[in-house]
Amino acid sequence: MTATTRAWHLKSRPQGMPTSDNFELKDLPLDDLQDGWVRVENKWLSVDPYMRGRMNDVKSYVPPFQVGAPLEGGAVGKVVESRSPDFKDGDTVFHMLGWREGAAAPAAAFNKLPAIGVGDEQWLGNLGLTGGTAYFGLLRVAEAKAGDVVFVSAAAGAVGSAVVQIAKAKGMTVIGSAGGADKCEFVRSLGADQVVDYKAGSIVKGLAQAAPDGIDVYFDNVGGEHLDAAFAAARQNARFAICGMIDAYNAAEPQSFRYIMRIISARIAVKGFIYTDFIRDFPAFHQEMGGWIASGAVKSRETVRDGLEATPDAFLDLFRGGNTGKMLVKL
Amino acid sequence: MTATTRAWHLKSRPQGMPTSDNFELKDLPLDDLQDGWVRVENKWLSVDPYMRGRMNDVKSYVPPFQVGAPLEGGAVGKVVESRSPDFKDGDTVFHMLGWREGAAAPAAAFNKLPAIGVGDEQWLGNLGLTGGTAYFGLLRVAEAKAGDVVFVSAAAGAVGSAVVQIAKAKGMTVIGSAGGADKCEFVRSLGADQVVDYKAGSIVKGLAQAAPDGIDVYFDNVGGEHLDAAFAAARQNARFAICGMIDAYNAAEPQSFRYIMRIISARIAVKGFIYTDFIRDFPAFHQEMGGWIASGAVKSRETVRDGLEATPDAFLDLFRGGNTGKMLVKL
Repeated sequence: MTATTRAWHLKSRPQGMPTSDNFELKDLPLDDLQDGWVRVENKWLSVDPYMRGRMNDVKSYVPPFQVGAPLEGGAVGKVVESRSPDFKDGDTVFHMLGWREGAAAPAAAFNKLPAIGVGDEQWLGNLGLTGGTAYFGLLRVAEAKAGDVVFVSAAAGAVGSAVVQIAKAKGMTVIGSAGGADKCEFVRSLGADQVVDYKAGSIVKGLAQAAPDGIDVYFDNVGGEHLDAAFAAARQNARFAICGMIDAYNAAEPQSFRYIMRIISARIAVKGFIYTDFIRDFPAFHQEMGGWIASGAVKSRETVRDGLEATPDAFLDLFRGGNTGKMLVKL
Repeated sequence: MTATTRAWHLKSRPQGMPTSDNFELKDLPLDDLQDGWVRVENKWLSVDPYMRGRMNDVKSYVPPFQVGAPLEGGAVGKVVESRSPDFKDGDTVFHMLGWREGAAAPAAAFNKLPAIGVGDEQWLGNLGLTGGTAYFGLLRVAEAKAGDVVFVSAAAGAVGSAVVQIAKAKGMTVIGSAGGADKCEFVRSLGADQVVDYKAGSIVKGLAQAAPDGIDVYFDNVGGEHLDAAFAAARQNARFAICGMIDAYNAAEPQSFRYIMRIISARIAVKGFIYTDFIRDFPAFHQEMGGWIASGAVKSRETVRDGLEATPDAFLDLFRGGNTGKMLVKL
């Protein structure tokens, strides 16, 4: 008898903005548990903007999803059956076999999560990809330090809201952008010194008003006009950490920049990065971030959708501004 | 009696592409020679693309030219009168009071040039701003090293042709872009392994063919589609030194990029710089470049216009592709 699990599959490659038609919920056979394998039931699924890139048929830092194959993504689950000495029933694990109810794989696919008194879902948020992306991008890629003026786009999102709080914990001045009054108020509540509402008018003008003396660091989640505004506002030797360009993920048109030439006069350093580039430094990140979570310096905010069926809509809402903080699916 | 000299003045600020109407040749009073001052007769004048930026009324790394005031730029001259103990008649000097026949100023404005057996005009080229820009941009900003695949735009220009030769002297593979068959042949003659003729079709496709395995370094003199092609072709951890964006200097339209998102997946580092950022390392540059010039590893090629009257046209020709190698005016 072969067991199955319900899993979201990529039905067709999206052209531009994805729709629910690109996804299909189907039974997926689970391999029989071999020696050294583990079976888990998922409790939390992560949906993240970077997954959009894997839906295109292009080589990138992770291989593309295949049409007809199950989707993948960060997940937290409980071990329900183990043929590995490293895991026992009830262990909480992080793994990448998300978008599905259960998973069976060799033990190496799973990371046992320590009991440090935080909610399991935090391992998909501030202690996981989003918090780590914020931490390494701000402190290592952009080399932000106390006293710097930091601009972060999509500051009400999962990564952005972590950037705001880490920057404040480290003594920086922070300007966050968000869309609409509610999200701007949320960004302020995280400690941001200034907020730019990108739905209220020109971002270039908004940033110039929020940071009249310019910015030292830009943490980019968005690209497009946000990045152009950062070029316009950059001080000498400004550093830009390019984490995402959500404006471009679904766009057929090229992005245009009026102020990119300031790279030369302001000697701007622009650098792209991926969370996993810093895998050797995860222990240091977990320790420092764990301390901030324990002290309340970094708080988490989630937008939670219920049930496996909700996964594609949760993902699509990332591109419609439907989330404040980290978007999660609870099973 | 007050002496005068003939000097080009900025008559009006160009809108977009400058024309000869923006310039006016007028007599300029020369201050009487005070104690500690020096008077020179210019022999060579430099015209450089960066001067276009100073014709706009915007704050940049150098202050803007003023309407009605004389223009400035790199020049080599001979001392004809000295009231400074540091200079004597006949000394060859580099200074920034170009676009004119003669100049009088405090001795600190002049740098005495050592007699190392190179033509005086080299101090405006391979031993001056253009060669130094190539040297520091390639080796320091982009950290190019032996074995790297280097793409350089405007490779038939003054800076670009120095980049090609320095890169070959350092054991790199070099792809240069230039406009038209003659310039491409010149770039090949400098040692470039591959040439992309940007007038012959898509630069993105041309670079993809010239560098099927991608590029490690891009030295940007042009911006625009050249920069986009470099984004498309970048290997993991590619480094871009942004020296100039001549495509943008006279353009009212923003620049657009189809491949800028590859900054993230390829972890591209993009950095702007100015020659004078490395002023403390000029002695090391002069020594290494002097050695290459002496050995013939770096050759100079100039496009020379005769007489002060030709200066604005020489400058305008920089934007019309009118020069191969360094554009100079000989007085």
